[in-house]
Amino acid sequence: MSSFEVQILGCGSATPTLNHHPTSQVLHIREKLFMVDCGEGTQLQMRKYKVNFSRLSHIFISHLHGDHCFGLIGLISTLDLLGRTGDVFIHAEPSLKPVLQPQIDFFAAHLDFRVHFEEFNPRESAVIYDDRSLKVTTVPLVHRIPCAGFVFEEKQTPAHIIPEMVAFHQIPVKQIAAIKAGSDYVTPDGKIIPNSHLTRPSEPAKRYAYCSDTAYSERIIPLIEGVDLLFHESTFMEQDALKAQKTFHSTAKQAATIALKAQVKELMLGHYSARYNHHEPLLSEAKEIFPNALLANEGVTKKL
Amino acid sequence: MSSFEVQILGCGSATPTLNHHPTSQVLHIREKLFMVDCGEGTQLQMRKYKVNFSRLSHIFISHLHGDHCFGLIGLISTLDLLGRTGDVFIHAEPSLKPVLQPQIDFFAAHLDFRVHFEEFNPRESAVIYDDRSLKVTTVPLVHRIPCAGFVFEEKQTPAHIIPEMVAFHQIPVKQIAAIKAGSDYVTPDGKIIPNSHLTRPSEPAKRYAYCSDTAYSERIIPLIEGVDLLFHESTFMEQDALKAQKTFHSTAKQAATIALKAQVKELMLGHYSARYNHHEPLLSEAKEIFPNALLANEGVTKKL
Repeated sequence: MSSFEVQILGCGSATPTLNHHPTSQVLHIREKLFMVDCGEGTQLQMRKYKVNFSRLSHIFISHLHGDHCFGLIGLISTLDLLGRTGDVFIHAEPSLKPVLQPQIDFFAAHLDFRVHFEEFNPRESAVIYDDRSLKVTTVPLVHRIPCAGFVFEEKQTPAHIIPEMVAFHQIPVKQIAAIKAGSDYVTPDGKIIPNSHLTRPSEPAKRYAYCSDTAYSERIIPLIEGVDLLFHESTFMEQDALKAQKTFHSTAKQAATIALKAQVKELMLGHYSARYNHHEPLLSEAKEIFPNALLANEGVTKKL
Repeated sequence: MSSFEVQILGCGSATPTLNHHPTSQVLHIREKLFMVDCGEGTQLQMRKYKVNFSRLSHIFISHLHGDHCFGLIGLISTLDLLGRTGDVFIHAEPSLKPVLQPQIDFFAAHLDFRVHFEEFNPRESAVIYDDRSLKVTTVPLVHRIPCAGFVFEEKQTPAHIIPEMVAFHQIPVKQIAAIKAGSDYVTPDGKIIPNSHLTRPSEPAKRYAYCSDTAYSERIIPLIEGVDLLFHESTFMEQDALKAQKTFHSTAKQAATIALKAQVKELMLGHYSARYNHHEPLLSEAKEIFPNALLANEGVTKKL
């Protein structure tokens, strides 16, 4: 069965507040766990929301502002305390390793696993992860420092066999794989049973785009077009649009405009400025442009 | 007015739990704020318990295990975001600077304040801080890596003048300072009014000792003797005494034994192992030896 869920561990911005933790998300994709960003306290949030540490191997870091990566050293140390042996892969721009590796060497010198730094160039779009069920592509964003978003694209699973039809036509087991892959079935007396009579389509493959932090940039649209869910930062309300521009962040309205133009299915807002205590006004501003929008919140799990 | 309060921000140990945060405490001493240790998420705990960031200038780090110092870079970054201009002093053993300074240089390069590393040798007891109202002395502890506790010793404030007596004897204002400092008053006709008739003693100066992390060590007793409050780590229960010994930690009973032998006034237990969900059994074990004991807990403020 296909499953693709986005779980929010933190959706605040740099200044800590009582309402929000710094940025981190985990994606549950077909029994695997992927992390996007890892702000301070992420490992505590993982505990709080009962995220299984042992299933996490790949961490994607959008950019090297502290609220997106200060939690890495604590998380790595804790994986060690928990007896971790499987390697960990951190996907980030090349500047991370020189600042994180010395911390690992000092604080977690005798790990029973390796931390691999999988470096990417945040200025260009490229496939940076590819396995049997998932492909991850970078999305160059526009921020004060090099920054990339990510598109997580599930691969289509084979069609589902209809057991009753297999029984009815007495199809041999050795033919099943070919039928799953799309073949028709030819009976011993030469009759062709079309594949569409034997299978029903699997769930459509899902795509999730994470775009944070970024100024408004239409250049990302071709890369995120039609995704099932777009997380787009909305640090500010429209009244603070000038502040957004100066700090290379977006307003909720700008996030919604990108969602509209990219024809995504659903928009999730987040990375809220500490200046707002309530986020419904951001949601209202977004919904005026793109109605199918929702607010990120700590602990929220969104199924695609 | 004298005031001396210990506020617990985190009293767990290395593995994060749902119940406890990694170690950090703030001491409120006569309007100043001092921090002892700074585990991951300390800045979030400061927010939660409404600790005033602007009043914090001195941070004392007992040792360089992550659960006692991973929060430093986030705290420094946030002080910057909050517009900090006053310098910050981090008192720690010399190994901290080479691992923290590169993080500051990378993540918080353009601070409007300086971070001073005030280095001390954790293997010897020495006065490492001294101002008008407070003296801080290190206490060499016994741990897997170099580690020091701290004694925070308030200085005695001058005696309180009794206004009614000043009026009765018509004492000139210019004499008041000398009387506060302990002088008798000589009337114009040569009569001596003893100081004790003119003043009442100020509150006794308080002493707080912080001892974490450490194996049982009677060598610390002379340094902490008679303190008003001793925080002594009690990572384990007596049933896990072997584990305590192996990891250079203490049991609650050992903490209580130190409290008893050092004749302290009160004992606070903390730095709880993640293996225990409830800490009353630790308190019971401690109270069998030293009845005036209490449990640390996040948010608890203890007035000395």
